[in-house]
Amino acid sequence: MTAQRVLVCTSDGQSAIFRMDPEHTRAALARAPAGLPPIEFVFRDIDAPDFAEVLQDCIALVGWMIPNETIRTVRGALRLIQLSGAGVDHLAPFDWLPPGVSLCNASTIHGPKLQEWSVMVLLMLHAQIPHFITAQRAQLWSKRHTSTIAGTTAMIFGTGGLGQAVARAAKSLGMITIGVRRTPGPATSFDAVIGQEEAELRLGEADVVVLTLPLTAQTRGRADAAFFSRMKPEAGFVNFGRGGLVIEADLIAALEARRLCGAVIDVTDPEPPPAGAPIWNAPRLVITPHVSCDDPATYVPDVLDLLLDNVGRLVEGRALRNVIDLARAY
Amino acid sequence: MTAQRVLVCTSDGQSAIFRMDPEHTRAALARAPAGLPPIEFVFRDIDAPDFAEVLQDCIALVGWMIPNETIRTVRGALRLIQLSGAGVDHLAPFDWLPPGVSLCNASTIHGPKLQEWSVMVLLMLHAQIPHFITAQRAQLWSKRHTSTIAGTTAMIFGTGGLGQAVARAAKSLGMITIGVRRTPGPATSFDAVIGQEEAELRLGEADVVVLTLPLTAQTRGRADAAFFSRMKPEAGFVNFGRGGLVIEADLIAALEARRLCGAVIDVTDPEPPPAGAPIWNAPRLVITPHVSCDDPATYVPDVLDLLLDNVGRLVEGRALRNVIDLARAY
Repeated sequence: MTAQRVLVCTSDGQSAIFRMDPEHTRAALARAPAGLPPIEFVFRDIDAPDFAEVLQDCIALVGWMIPNETIRTVRGALRLIQLSGAGVDHLAPFDWLPPGVSLCNASTIHGPKLQEWSVMVLLMLHAQIPHFITAQRAQLWSKRHTSTIAGTTAMIFGTGGLGQAVARAAKSLGMITIGVRRTPGPATSFDAVIGQEEAELRLGEADVVVLTLPLTAQTRGRADAAFFSRMKPEAGFVNFGRGGLVIEADLIAALEARRLCGAVIDVTDPEPPPAGAPIWNAPRLVITPHVSCDDPATYVPDVLDLLLDNVGRLVEGRALRNVIDLARAY
Repeated sequence: MTAQRVLVCTSDGQSAIFRMDPEHTRAALARAPAGLPPIEFVFRDIDAPDFAEVLQDCIALVGWMIPNETIRTVRGALRLIQLSGAGVDHLAPFDWLPPGVSLCNASTIHGPKLQEWSVMVLLMLHAQIPHFITAQRAQLWSKRHTSTIAGTTAMIFGTGGLGQAVARAAKSLGMITIGVRRTPGPATSFDAVIGQEEAELRLGEADVVVLTLPLTAQTRGRADAAFFSRMKPEAGFVNFGRGGLVIEADLIAALEARRLCGAVIDVTDPEPPPAGAPIWNAPRLVITPHVSCDDPATYVPDVLDLLLDNVGRLVEGRALRNVIDLARAY
């Protein structure tokens, strides 16, 4: 049996925690379950002149900032593009994807890190930390006493890998969790899952609203002035999805008007915000620089384990994990 | 059996969550276990002209900002002063306490609230939130990737009610907990309890150091430049005790030098810090205005339950709970 080749797409400028090197792939092969076909890893920078040529002989490509215009013309062995992140908005529209090639994301590997981060963020908003930080800047000792968080309600937009991690965090704190997705129905860690229209009507029930949605034509600008005006007064707001989900000026206005008690966002549009952008100075807003989901100790190993599992599935003709629905774009 | 009288010490200027009214005391009596002697509550402001006169007929006084100079001269039925808070530094020295009167605090009732608050603060320091907040002010998108918190070490100075709540929080996150107190030995939720001298030598083991100590002549200024210099580089620092435990200028210097990754303090000296005090603007420092321990939903009921339990113990001649050791001053 000849080895299946997998191209690891390296590129400069990426944070070191996402970079895959031969030590990672050797360790992943050593961890892989018995029965996996022989696999050989090849490493290329996206700017390598022979990138397309090498890719032709590979069954799979793994990476994040992949050269989609180069991939557009590739035919041959390629069957799988395994992305090392969750959101695919940077690759849409998907007309560049060659026929017969599946695009898979890594949304399920962010769980433990985002769950712990969510515990922190849910508690920070409940405890009025954004208020205290803004008061501190103004040299104000402005007490707000809060009880414990159990029994308060989180409404979580998106019930995928990220949304489930947030829901697990909220349940671990004794919160009530309402998920929002296209198709209502039961889901693990959610007390209820409702549709978009019902969510509009019930936004006022939530003590905190969390966005974990993918960015698509349908979700862009989802959190706008009307959205914030339907939220419970002094509720908290969180964005773990993409900056483009939020009309930034409307979020700032809601914070300035104390319509919200505070917000914690891990994503902006663009990232980073430009120098002097009003979002930097919005009151009661904590910005973290897109670090909520990525555990440096486990990120690359988890992506490679997912990749090898998917290659095994390909070879055996089984369904792949985390396949992107190109029509829905997530 | 004549009713035992208890004086509730009311005073203006206190946060509403600590104010006890007849509705609270009625509810507490309704909750009290059978067998408690009849109890009658009397309410007086500390400035009431008949305060001392009324107090003479009471077995107990409950309050926080109690008029110790007035109490100094009281003789009669008084046997118990039940404070509604934990720290007693505002009442030291204790030469005003009439003979035969026990002074008890309420340090054990802060548990659930401080435990949840501690989960938040431990995660905030681990996740570098103080760094992100300071970077945001400078309009910097400064990533720091962190793994999950399990396996990191918290050193907790003080193993009383507050220290135990912090230790429970740390254990719930999978952390290693080292307690520090006068007398080493086992304690619930602590992996080890060591003495002060050993703590000096082992400060560098801690990823986060938490102070929950009472403020006494021995503990004042405990966290000084030498203390911070022995901590692990880029460790986190928390103060839940009293502002006077810390040499504020030394904390600021350690933060400015990035000796610490950040600090979260709920207490300052004085409270609030004066306008223009450097502590307001220290980098990577989050100040919360002395709100970490007090749950508005449960505070007064919990104090009254403790008070009634102690009155029952007095009448039956059993040992009281939470008695202050006047020599140690906590």
